[in-house]
Amino acid sequence: MNSYQNKMAKRKNIVFIAQSLDGYIAGPSGEIDWLDMVANPGGEDMGYLALMQDIDAIIMGRNTFDFVANYDGPWPYPKKVFVLSNTLQSVPQHLTDKAEIIKGKPKAILDNLGKQGLYTFYIDGGVTIQSFLREDLIDELRITTLPILLGGGYALFGDMEKRLTFEHESTAVYLGQLVQSRYVRRDIDFPLQT
Amino acid sequence: MNSYQNKMAKRKNIVFIAQSLDGYIAGPSGEIDWLDMVANPGGEDMGYLALMQDIDAIIMGRNTFDFVANYDGPWPYPKKVFVLSNTLQSVPQHLTDKAEIIKGKPKAILDNLGKQGLYTFYIDGGVTIQSFLREDLIDELRITTLPILLGGGYALFGDMEKRLTFEHESTAVYLGQLVQSRYVRRDIDFPLQT
Repeated sequence: MNSYQNKMAKRKNIVFIAQSLDGYIAGPSGEIDWLDMVANPGGEDMGYLALMQDIDAIIMGRNTFDFVANYDGPWPYPKKVFVLSNTLQSVPQHLTDKAEIIKGKPKAILDNLGKQGLYTFYIDGGVTIQSFLREDLIDELRITTLPILLGGGYALFGDMEKRLTFEHESTAVYLGQLVQSRYVRRDIDFPLQT
Repeated sequence: MNSYQNKMAKRKNIVFIAQSLDGYIAGPSGEIDWLDMVANPGGEDMGYLALMQDIDAIIMGRNTFDFVANYDGPWPYPKKVFVLSNTLQSVPQHLTDKAEIIKGKPKAILDNLGKQGLYTFYIDGGVTIQSFLREDLIDELRITTLPILLGGGYALFGDMEKRLTFEHESTAVYLGQLVQSRYVRRDIDFPLQT
């Protein structure tokens, strides 16, 4: 294995996201108030800081970026953000050292970022996650489910031509209410012997 | 509280079902092979027998009934099955003592069954579960998630006009791979203090 192959072998794309019981990441009008439905007085981060240490950079969709860029609070990411958009021309002035626009298909984007020495990514935003999954480019899912049925909205997962099997790695319950499960991508011949 | 109110107060409708990571109960062509994706040599029942003891009867949709009635194996239900169908005229001859057709809307059906002394039900089948949820008639969800993305199919949950909040009760992992969470219906004022 040469150096490039070696680095590609450690490539990892991680999804870390919260969903409702019925699989939405936002309500019909983009509502995300329910993400705070459980009081969190101790500031439990539910694995967010560990994730930030695990990754080289973040790849997010344009909708997620717009939301974060307009959020009235400190910039939440300690790692470089790549905004996947074929229409956005530039990022706001105050974010030019934090975020960069990238264009193209997931595979080509990952190859290009790999050449810059970036191999491990937090993949965020429903559309972006779905486009990566359709090309089987997600290695790990860390999904936190909140105890609410929204009845409609923006779905985490979308239609795919092909099934994808995963292996359950661990499950933790945060604040007594939020169920977080981690899954790693693995082709499984049924029935999986455990 | 009179006797009737007392019995109504203990009414409970329980959903017990398996879904894919992307929230389907069957694939695009009705595939359910993935329900057996994890080997279960010890015959772990994942709470099924306890559920059967918890309930007075089963209410299921016509699709689920057709599937079970045609299944080549022993009849799986120790309690009476009520098949919710406005078109089905009769059940197969060999099931006349096990299953009965009922018609009407969920609330009226529950009232009628309550008069027969039946108060606690296992509600099964996607369409039936969704129609009960739309009238806020589900008291408990016991959902087992399998580690596979199907990419399409028959969804467990459907559109609803109104959000429904639940309280997480417990989560267990079966066979190292299947995550089962139990939720009880409760109106929650955000943020819920735990």
